[in-house]
Amino acid sequence: VTSSLGPLARGPLRPPSAAARQQATQRCDALAKPTGALGRLEDLAIWLAGCQGACPPHGIDNVRAVVFAGDHGVSRYGVSAYPREVTAAMVHAFLSGGAGVAVLARQHGAKLRVLDIGVDSDLTDLPIEIRAEVRRFKIRRSSGAIHLEDALTIDETRAAIAAGIAVADEEIALGADLLIGGDMGIGNTTPAAALIAAGLGVPAREVTGRGTGIDDPALAYKKTLIDAALLRAGNRVADPVAALTALGSADIATGVGFLLGAARAGVPVLLDGIVSVAAALVADQITPGVVAWCTAGHRSTEPAQSLALDKLGLEPLLDLGLRLGEGSGAMAAVPLVRSASLLLGEMALLSDLAP
Amino acid sequence: VTSSLGPLARGPLRPPSAAARQQATQRCDALAKPTGALGRLEDLAIWLAGCQGACPPHGIDNVRAVVFAGDHGVSRYGVSAYPREVTAAMVHAFLSGGAGVAVLARQHGAKLRVLDIGVDSDLTDLPIEIRAEVRRFKIRRSSGAIHLEDALTIDETRAAIAAGIAVADEEIALGADLLIGGDMGIGNTTPAAALIAAGLGVPAREVTGRGTGIDDPALAYKKTLIDAALLRAGNRVADPVAALTALGSADIATGVGFLLGAARAGVPVLLDGIVSVAAALVADQITPGVVAWCTAGHRSTEPAQSLALDKLGLEPLLDLGLRLGEGSGAMAAVPLVRSASLLLGEMALLSDLAP
Repeated sequence: VTSSLGPLARGPLRPPSAAARQQATQRCDALAKPTGALGRLEDLAIWLAGCQGACPPHGIDNVRAVVFAGDHGVSRYGVSAYPREVTAAMVHAFLSGGAGVAVLARQHGAKLRVLDIGVDSDLTDLPIEIRAEVRRFKIRRSSGAIHLEDALTIDETRAAIAAGIAVADEEIALGADLLIGGDMGIGNTTPAAALIAAGLGVPAREVTGRGTGIDDPALAYKKTLIDAALLRAGNRVADPVAALTALGSADIATGVGFLLGAARAGVPVLLDGIVSVAAALVADQITPGVVAWCTAGHRSTEPAQSLALDKLGLEPLLDLGLRLGEGSGAMAAVPLVRSASLLLGEMALLSDLAP
Repeated sequence: VTSSLGPLARGPLRPPSAAARQQATQRCDALAKPTGALGRLEDLAIWLAGCQGACPPHGIDNVRAVVFAGDHGVSRYGVSAYPREVTAAMVHAFLSGGAGVAVLARQHGAKLRVLDIGVDSDLTDLPIEIRAEVRRFKIRRSSGAIHLEDALTIDETRAAIAAGIAVADEEIALGADLLIGGDMGIGNTTPAAALIAAGLGVPAREVTGRGTGIDDPALAYKKTLIDAALLRAGNRVADPVAALTALGSADIATGVGFLLGAARAGVPVLLDGIVSVAAALVADQITPGVVAWCTAGHRSTEPAQSLALDKLGLEPLLDLGLRLGEGSGAMAAVPLVRSASLLLGEMALLSDLAP
């Protein structure tokens, strides 16, 4: 399936360390607690140890999140409760620290970066250096309206995936212990749900959710639109890169590359909501094994996200009814990843207990 | 129902501020996000604002947890996978920072205090000043085996409740923004489940769980023992203080007082597992309205905890299969409470967004 990736294709992924996982499992059982009493935090600690190839895992001090912003042709067709101009406005909110994920990133001492991958604006009101940095990986203004036309050209898809890999490499060079890919884009649950429908082979009615909070008539129309997109894409969706081209968007394709880059470098990732999980589904189709480097941060209210998580074999850490996107659900779960690491490293052993 | 509390009884509780809740609800809707997109974090922010009488709520900087340690007569009767000597050994682990909740408290910058309320040891191996401090509120060595005898005398129950109120008052005087009561005591899920069965009017089979991980025969025996305790206590359990006396323990009664003290002072509490939630159920029977000052930190694997949470109308923040006790599940949820407060206070408003 990787042939369509062209020069971006690489060999199979290295899996997380089975030896470190084994050591971590044994250490969990030796901690001063009943066997299994830390529940999912034990699974999380074992996963981290495997990703790091170290038991106990080292600290998760350098958490780095990147928000991939982009507009979507479908946002002109009534699939969102908000106008597309909100996407560009929110880029400013990420930069000024007022976006939800920015508040959480400050709380958790995480780095946050926003990139305009496909915003339907030139962001000319930004200061010149900031504007250059934010637009450094820009692919195009908006992506195509997927019920009428392909989201991207194949070259744009490859360029977006390459951009995502490059962004991951940059973040990893800066010392990332844990990566989060976030999304911003009015209308983006439509291509994300379409990609998940294509990946799972299910119709629109199983994947379509209310996104920003659309009403029943808009929800019904959104389903029609996704089914039209799936019909238009036809058999091409068997190839994940072709599926991104037909049904995705520049920002989602960049998110796919970001996950490929993280997995190739062996850096763990916390997934967020429907857009992030759609990217993970596609990335794991492109290069099987990507999912082994991923943990699901939260369960979104979008039905497609839960379906894709099931397919990937992931159970989210949080289930709080979040549907903000931006990477916010993953960012909210960061303290749990740190807790898992610290518990495995710092708890006393049963054998240490005073008699 | 408060008559049995004797001189500890007081008038009705002040509820959280409806005005601040209303302000917080309006502010949630004005933040730069789709309406309701922060899910349960919005409910949490509104609850905090109500408890503090302030919108946005001030920071949750001073989180203070107190572990009430005690042994239980039933631990001589095969209801735990661990010997009762572990309780005293774990007091050392709390003091040395190696207990699970101690690791989490360090991570979250929370204060942690351990008190010997009913440990079946004089802890003579502790340094004299520390020993005096840890035993300052000690009620007795172990509590009675509830299937054979009352856990406490009525005077001990009242003394334990008074101790819990005094401990809460001390923590609040030190500036607590958020309180957590933790438990340590081999066998303690048995009296906790018995109290919940009594409070809900259900038989042992609905409330009995595996605690530290007992096998099927031990589980069957634990049910028998709880039913015997309920039969022995009879109609006395209609009075919550009498129920504590018959079925509880010194440490659980102190935990009840701790919650009464917090609610009387209007300081919010994060509940933990079965022992903490049993205490909340009893405290809310003693003084209706205590639950309004509580949020549930996590869902334990003990069935009684979920039943009691349903009765109290609380939905936990985390559901990670934790069953460690110690206050660990509540402590793991502390960052979410802080997130809720920060999001309400620091996110941009929709009206601030660039056009």
